[in-house]
Amino acid sequence: MFKTAEHLYIQVADNIEQLIEKEVLKIGEKLPSVRTLSKQQGISLSTAFQAYYHLESKGLIESRPKSGYYIRFNSKRMPDLPASCEPVKKAAEVTVHEMVAAVYNLMAAPDIVRFSVATPPPEILPAAKMAKAVVQALRELPDYGVAYDPLQGNLRLRRQLALLSLSWGGAYTENDVVTTNGCVEALTLCLSAVTQPGDTIAIESPAYYGALQLAEGLGLKVLEVPTHPATGVDLAYLDKAIPRHKIKACLFVPNFNNPIGCCMPDKQKKELVGIIEKYDIALIEDDIYGDLYFGKQRPATCKTFDKKGNVLYCSSVSKSVAPGFRVGWTMPGKYKDRILQLKHMHAIASPSITHAAVGNFLETGRYENHLRNLRKKLHTQYLRYSQAIMEYFPESARVSRPQGGCVLWIELEGHINTYELFQQALKHKISISPGRIFTLQDRYSNCMRLSYSVPWSKQVDDSLKTLGKLLRRMG
Amino acid sequence: MFKTAEHLYIQVADNIEQLIEKEVLKIGEKLPSVRTLSKQQGISLSTAFQAYYHLESKGLIESRPKSGYYIRFNSKRMPDLPASCEPVKKAAEVTVHEMVAAVYNLMAAPDIVRFSVATPPPEILPAAKMAKAVVQALRELPDYGVAYDPLQGNLRLRRQLALLSLSWGGAYTENDVVTTNGCVEALTLCLSAVTQPGDTIAIESPAYYGALQLAEGLGLKVLEVPTHPATGVDLAYLDKAIPRHKIKACLFVPNFNNPIGCCMPDKQKKELVGIIEKYDIALIEDDIYGDLYFGKQRPATCKTFDKKGNVLYCSSVSKSVAPGFRVGWTMPGKYKDRILQLKHMHAIASPSITHAAVGNFLETGRYENHLRNLRKKLHTQYLRYSQAIMEYFPESARVSRPQGGCVLWIELEGHINTYELFQQALKHKISISPGRIFTLQDRYSNCMRLSYSVPWSKQVDDSLKTLGKLLRRMG
Repeated sequence: MFKTAEHLYIQVADNIEQLIEKEVLKIGEKLPSVRTLSKQQGISLSTAFQAYYHLESKGLIESRPKSGYYIRFNSKRMPDLPASCEPVKKAAEVTVHEMVAAVYNLMAAPDIVRFSVATPPPEILPAAKMAKAVVQALRELPDYGVAYDPLQGNLRLRRQLALLSLSWGGAYTENDVVTTNGCVEALTLCLSAVTQPGDTIAIESPAYYGALQLAEGLGLKVLEVPTHPATGVDLAYLDKAIPRHKIKACLFVPNFNNPIGCCMPDKQKKELVGIIEKYDIALIEDDIYGDLYFGKQRPATCKTFDKKGNVLYCSSVSKSVAPGFRVGWTMPGKYKDRILQLKHMHAIASPSITHAAVGNFLETGRYENHLRNLRKKLHTQYLRYSQAIMEYFPESARVSRPQGGCVLWIELEGHINTYELFQQALKHKISISPGRIFTLQDRYSNCMRLSYSVPWSKQVDDSLKTLGKLLRRMG
Repeated sequence: MFKTAEHLYIQVADNIEQLIEKEVLKIGEKLPSVRTLSKQQGISLSTAFQAYYHLESKGLIESRPKSGYYIRFNSKRMPDLPASCEPVKKAAEVTVHEMVAAVYNLMAAPDIVRFSVATPPPEILPAAKMAKAVVQALRELPDYGVAYDPLQGNLRLRRQLALLSLSWGGAYTENDVVTTNGCVEALTLCLSAVTQPGDTIAIESPAYYGALQLAEGLGLKVLEVPTHPATGVDLAYLDKAIPRHKIKACLFVPNFNNPIGCCMPDKQKKELVGIIEKYDIALIEDDIYGDLYFGKQRPATCKTFDKKGNVLYCSSVSKSVAPGFRVGWTMPGKYKDRILQLKHMHAIASPSITHAAVGNFLETGRYENHLRNLRKKLHTQYLRYSQAIMEYFPESARVSRPQGGCVLWIELEGHINTYELFQQALKHKISISPGRIFTLQDRYSNCMRLSYSVPWSKQVDDSLKTLGKLLRRMG
């Protein structure tokens, strides 16, 4: 029977779909180029393109810019998204949680499969290039960097960091940047600059436990704002909460938020900045995962829409280049003088050599190249991990679909306690982050954060299988 | 006439004294060894020794361990010590002072003679050795140090820092040490660990302005305790003040305190620890200048006498090796768990490479050798500076006599305003630290801190002469 071109592309697509189902073509694998497919199958280029487009629209494959098509999902099933969190009625006093210590203390333990660590491991970081950049820094710094760096930070590094802002629509100069000892010092300085002990700040829910602890350390109260896994902070809720709770500042991670992985759409970012400006309060924007996007384009930031200097942008190279180098920065808008005063008070200067080294690395232009590879790796890892979770975890598991970053947020059935899972998994030398540490309230006990930053291996596969078994036994 | 041996040594000493008066032998210069003197003068070794001993007892020369005798003072005159400060009646709210910013902003300005900087400049620091240590760190650190250091700090560095405590009678291990981003982070963590916003702490008067600012940043009140230029904090005063002002912690610099340069005698240190223990409060001991002693022996610390873990010892290599490397540490006694929690919260980790490099440098054993040279240089500089101040400054100037460290505290007549002097001196490209920044109260306006860390040169001599002229014009 004669087939129309329309039927033909569907047939080709169906064949490919079967190969995916049978796992002949595996998640994360690259498909032949459109040209190759056309030759292989004896079809026109446009038919080949249509076949891929059809598969893409079904969510089975995806195109990556300048790279081609990749297997994205096995069609068998796709887990639901976790629920948006419930509104919180009251601001709570922050307390430090033993769980954080229990999870964190494993950082140094050997032979653990670290699904709990939201930082790419050294094997996918540009370690050798950084060593070269350090040697160059030694050659170029006056007196080999033994003297104090300028208070605001290494000038060449600041220039490069200012240039990075171009990627998200910023147009800043070295004068707008203050370097810090990692992103966490930037967050500390920014929180100290815009609050007094006893003040209330707004934070996403769930939120990075480090931010919650930081707030506690500064004597702040925290209002946890409902956050949707796909669209981020509930802005209508926030708009009402600011006057009601006398919120002094917001501390948000709009891009690939940790732990939920969501990316706030640009429209919402703009709206958020509008709300901040309306009440003339500060927004501390932690953009530490912003460069790790899987899509075609780097997402914007809230800072992109900041016209009045109310946004204190914070970031670091800890998720992309060298966590151990402690290179972070802030673009603190109208709070710059206060930030410099606080930096003088709390740090005097940043470490000279590692900061100069990152400046050198950025100057070579290799950062973008490295990022491209890192993003590809993380994206592929995400797909492999998702696939395995679908296969091994109970069907009721709801899994976030991050568009960047390195963590998944998994919601399990209500009776499952993920701290118990954490303890059981530990006996199998697997670490996860129980959901409870991402809030100051009694919730998320049936959730977990799982990082896919550990490169895929049989051990990873086995460990996810073990987690699945443990969950089924609890279930 | 026949001379007895007794007369003979006096005659030899008198001759030398004349050479000092005539400035044939200059301040800071080395004298011939006892053996050489004996040969030169045809006298016995014991007579030569007696001659030097006689000069030493008159304060004209001094012996330095393993080095010999040096010219200490010209006998013409010796300035009086500054007065001990007046008791302070009330705890004051801390306010940040514009003067600090004015003084500090000069750090980066070129062509300034920096009498305002209490840190040795790179030319007397072991810059080239540190560069080697950095390269070694790159070779030895896994993945070139791109990964996070352990929370408590680099193990080899901590071992070396624990060993350093032997020099002041400590016997600590790597488990007792937590590394920090310079001494200032150690002080921040320690203050945060033992106080809450609104608490009152005791501090020396005058005190390092950074400590006052830090206290303000943490929302603390400060009680300034009278401090004597020779013996340090007034302990009787402190003993009464602790219960009266509900002092939660003391933050003291017992060894070569900045700005006054005093070294608390060991007996007082022991007594101080006793007081701290009696009230079971914390003592944060900043020992950053402790290794820069001019005498025969490294002074003890309060930590030396700490049996109950109430002393949080803090130090860094910023005054002796490499300020830009940001290597500090604390031995926080019984507060260690809280300090680790706070370090996790505020820093996550210390910068890997510079910390490993300092560990390497300490392992080579070159630190003690370097320190010996640095101490000699600073001591000689101190003597040259003192001599010049005596010569150029008004006779009424009272000058501290530090036994270590790198700063002098100068008290001028009551009507002289040293912030005015600061501003005038700046026009001559000279920076000093006005006394007013070392207190939160309205005092010390007629005092100044003058660092002798800039190596002696004609420019230094001219600059001190200029300061003297400006003062006489104000007088």
